Amino acid sequence: MTGQSRIGVTGLAVMGANLARNIARHGVPVAVHNRTTARTTEFIEAHGQEGTFTGAETLEDFVAVLEKPRRIIVMVKAGAPVDGVIGELVPLLDPGDIIIDAGNSHFADTKRRTEDCARHGLRFMGIGVSGGEEGALLGPSIMPGGHPAAYAEVEEVLASIAAQVDGTPCCTHVGPDGAGHYVKMVHNGIEYADIQLIAEAYDLLTHVAGLDAPAIGSIFSEWNTGDLESFLIEITGKVLVKTDERTGGPLVDVIVDQAEQKGTGRWTAIDALELGVPLTAITEAVFARTLSALRDERGAAAATLAGPAPGRGEHRPDLVDDIREALYASKVVAYAQGFAQMRAASIANGWNLDLGAMATIWRGGCIIRAQFLNRIRDAYAEHPDLDNLLMVPYFTEAVANAQDAWRRVVMMATEHGVAIPAFSSSLSYYDGYRRERGPANLIQGLRDYFGAHTYRRLDAEGSFHTRWAQDGVEVRTDG
Amino acid sequence: MTGQSRIGVTGLAVMGANLARNIARHGVPVAVHNRTTARTTEFIEAHGQEGTFTGAETLEDFVAVLEKPRRIIVMVKAGAPVDGVIGELVPLLDPGDIIIDAGNSHFADTKRRTEDCARHGLRFMGIGVSGGEEGALLGPSIMPGGHPAAYAEVEEVLASIAAQVDGTPCCTHVGPDGAGHYVKMVHNGIEYADIQLIAEAYDLLTHVAGLDAPAIGSIFSEWNTGDLESFLIEITGKVLVKTDERTGGPLVDVIVDQAEQKGTGRWTAIDALELGVPLTAITEAVFARTLSALRDERGAAAATLAGPAPGRGEHRPDLVDDIREALYASKVVAYAQGFAQMRAASIANGWNLDLGAMATIWRGGCIIRAQFLNRIRDAYAEHPDLDNLLMVPYFTEAVANAQDAWRRVVMMATEHGVAIPAFSSSLSYYDGYRRERGPANLIQGLRDYFGAHTYRRLDAEGSFHTRWAQDGVEVRTDG
Repeated sequence: MTGQSRIGVTGLAVMGANLARNIARHGVPVAVHNRTTARTTEFIEAHGQEGTFTGAETLEDFVAVLEKPRRIIVMVKAGAPVDGVIGELVPLLDPGDIIIDAGNSHFADTKRRTEDCARHGLRFMGIGVSGGEEGALLGPSIMPGGHPAAYAEVEEVLASIAAQVDGTPCCTHVGPDGAGHYVKMVHNGIEYADIQLIAEAYDLLTHVAGLDAPAIGSIFSEWNTGDLESFLIEITGKVLVKTDERTGGPLVDVIVDQAEQKGTGRWTAIDALELGVPLTAITEAVFARTLSALRDERGAAAATLAGPAPGRGEHRPDLVDDIREALYASKVVAYAQGFAQMRAASIANGWNLDLGAMATIWRGGCIIRAQFLNRIRDAYAEHPDLDNLLMVPYFTEAVANAQDAWRRVVMMATEHGVAIPAFSSSLSYYDGYRRERGPANLIQGLRDYFGAHTYRRLDAEGSFHTRWAQDGVEVRTDG
Repeated sequence: MTGQSRIGVTGLAVMGANLARNIARHGVPVAVHNRTTARTTEFIEAHGQEGTFTGAETLEDFVAVLEKPRRIIVMVKAGAPVDGVIGELVPLLDPGDIIIDAGNSHFADTKRRTEDCARHGLRFMGIGVSGGEEGALLGPSIMPGGHPAAYAEVEEVLASIAAQVDGTPCCTHVGPDGAGHYVKMVHNGIEYADIQLIAEAYDLLTHVAGLDAPAIGSIFSEWNTGDLESFLIEITGKVLVKTDERTGGPLVDVIVDQAEQKGTGRWTAIDALELGVPLTAITEAVFARTLSALRDERGAAAATLAGPAPGRGEHRPDLVDDIREALYASKVVAYAQGFAQMRAASIANGWNLDLGAMATIWRGGCIIRAQFLNRIRDAYAEHPDLDNLLMVPYFTEAVANAQDAWRRVVMMATEHGVAIPAFSSSLSYYDGYRRERGPANLIQGLRDYFGAHTYRRLDAEGSFHTRWAQDGVEVRTDG
């Protein structure tokens, strides 16, 4: 039975199982394998009629049924399990075979594994897959990283199973080695910012506008017909109008206010710090989740720390519109930051990322899918070397039009004591970015005073140090 | 000549040289060594009369002249050079000898080196030294980490050379392995926040109050007589009043507004993300420096992006006082966050840090030295298990008194288009921390919708999932 399956999937938890089903449903014969054989048997029993599957009990059987060069999708938990499966596969494979890690691996691990596999003559790919369980089955956004020749061997399958928007698959070759997982990481980071901005808007609509969850849900559904149209705005509307079966009230009102996280948002923020790229909205979103986790502390603090009590209704008629505009402007900044980070990473890693293509493949299948991404695609189509999305006319004007409302919302939240870390940090970034001269001259002066770290001058080349605490004389320090 | 020196210093760049001089000036015989022998010779020529020095040409000679157990301070560039020196020392040393890394090493490296040295029977210490060149010579703040028995062998020397405040040396045993370097890292992170807050106050005084640098310098000098009294406020006053010899105007006005960084602030923020501790003020300070570095981009953006132009003078008489109060309240938050991070790290690493002692040894010698730290020391003396500094009456009241002014300043900066990332993120943290119920319930609802990540309920134990897009029924997921 050698060579009967065009591609293999090992790891049949829900994501792997759904990917395998998606591939088979597109007419591609798929070999499936799982460490626990029972799961393979169950999979074949449940889904065997959906396509041409070959269930393999062992990895030896699994590789034996694969067409060459072998194409093996590994869908196991990120970290040591991925290395474990690779270690078992390596001795069974032939030069030119392709191992594809479709999990949420850190891009640095993917770079390392690419090199390790290359030593064995194997081709390794790290592909980001976004869209959750449903996306994996019905059409995810796929971000493949690896050697172009390896991608050519799997392109047809991946493009066919991806979400399609306006006839274009949400799948394109991202770049070499860790590029695919990197872009998936930033996608998830942006998702954190999107969600935090929605949470802040919800908080203001609740505690300043004085609206209840169903009313706010209707507002989000209405927003979903305009510039904000996106999967996350859509489901926010649905979540907020959901009635709880037990209490008869809104379900969201009985959900505990502690946000969890799985780590990719944190990775994105850490990477931005390492790259030296200001990424304030995503990072504040990550910290907001960690603050939400401190529920016992917050309970004690609420009884102790002074400040305006949330809950005063303010019925200014344009308040809802102001919040929508603040949300939109903040979202533009969050995306501008995330794309600037990808640009910096592309340069640092020599990946040559096509940022417009990233926006294109995020338009469907993934969590942050939105009309908005067409605008980003267009921006990079016109300006491939764009430093910052804020600088293309569409976004420049969008923020210019929104900024008065944005400032009113930040001021209102500040007055009412409602925390808006992502709204306000995005605004501070905007105001900092559009300042030709900021206050960092003082920082350099202080660093030179206490640490002799030197400074540069506006009116002369070179590095200078003032002997502040001695004779006060300035000396040039670079010869 | 065996055993004639009580301690040795290898690495005679300015920090190592000044530490050696400081030790010798306290009557302790010091062996000195440098990879380049010429520097050792120069050191002895320049400073030989300041105490009892023994210059060693080779590491073999160096270890030969040291009393046993040998105490060797390594003061070389962090990273590979430290490992290099350790590798050369190991074969020359005897069990029980002590290697002391006094550079700015990452605490994880210090943990690793502690284990590596222990395998050779050697005792390794990582000690944080703050205060720059002048501090190293005249009395730094010293944060020693390592085994208590090793510390006992060097305590007398370190305590004698440290800064002294009210008769107490700014040196105490911090904890095992990486604890000393960890605390030094957070010290530096807090320094980033302190400096950023000062820069934002300066920016507001310039571009909202319409004051020039010397006038602002006088304000800082006045502030230095009150609650804000600290080394950084003091030198801010001095830097701002400094006249440039070339232009005759304020020196600060000709310094380029691009802040540099050496990495410890970034490390602090990354560690907070990994620990899951909200550390917004320090992180925004790090990002503000990276934004300042984008000077060319800012220049282009200034001509393109809409917003209020800074520079309008607003002569509200209490504006300066408001800014002082905003600075103080933000500073309290920045310290509360940094101390909460140390508490979390102490628990995660089993370090048993005495946070009050950390405040005590930061009162002198180091960059963030301030009267303020006495209040922190007192807080932990009364409440050793304090979750958050904001919860002790002194700080609760300080922020309660300042918060109206703080909110006015954030609103004013927002209206005037002046970026205040640290002021506003500190306020958002404060408002988020004092919220018994925040908006993260919606985040959990969204995560459950798109990723089946489950949520908890206020009114029932367990984890729940709603089949949002299917039949809308809620199911319990934990059995």
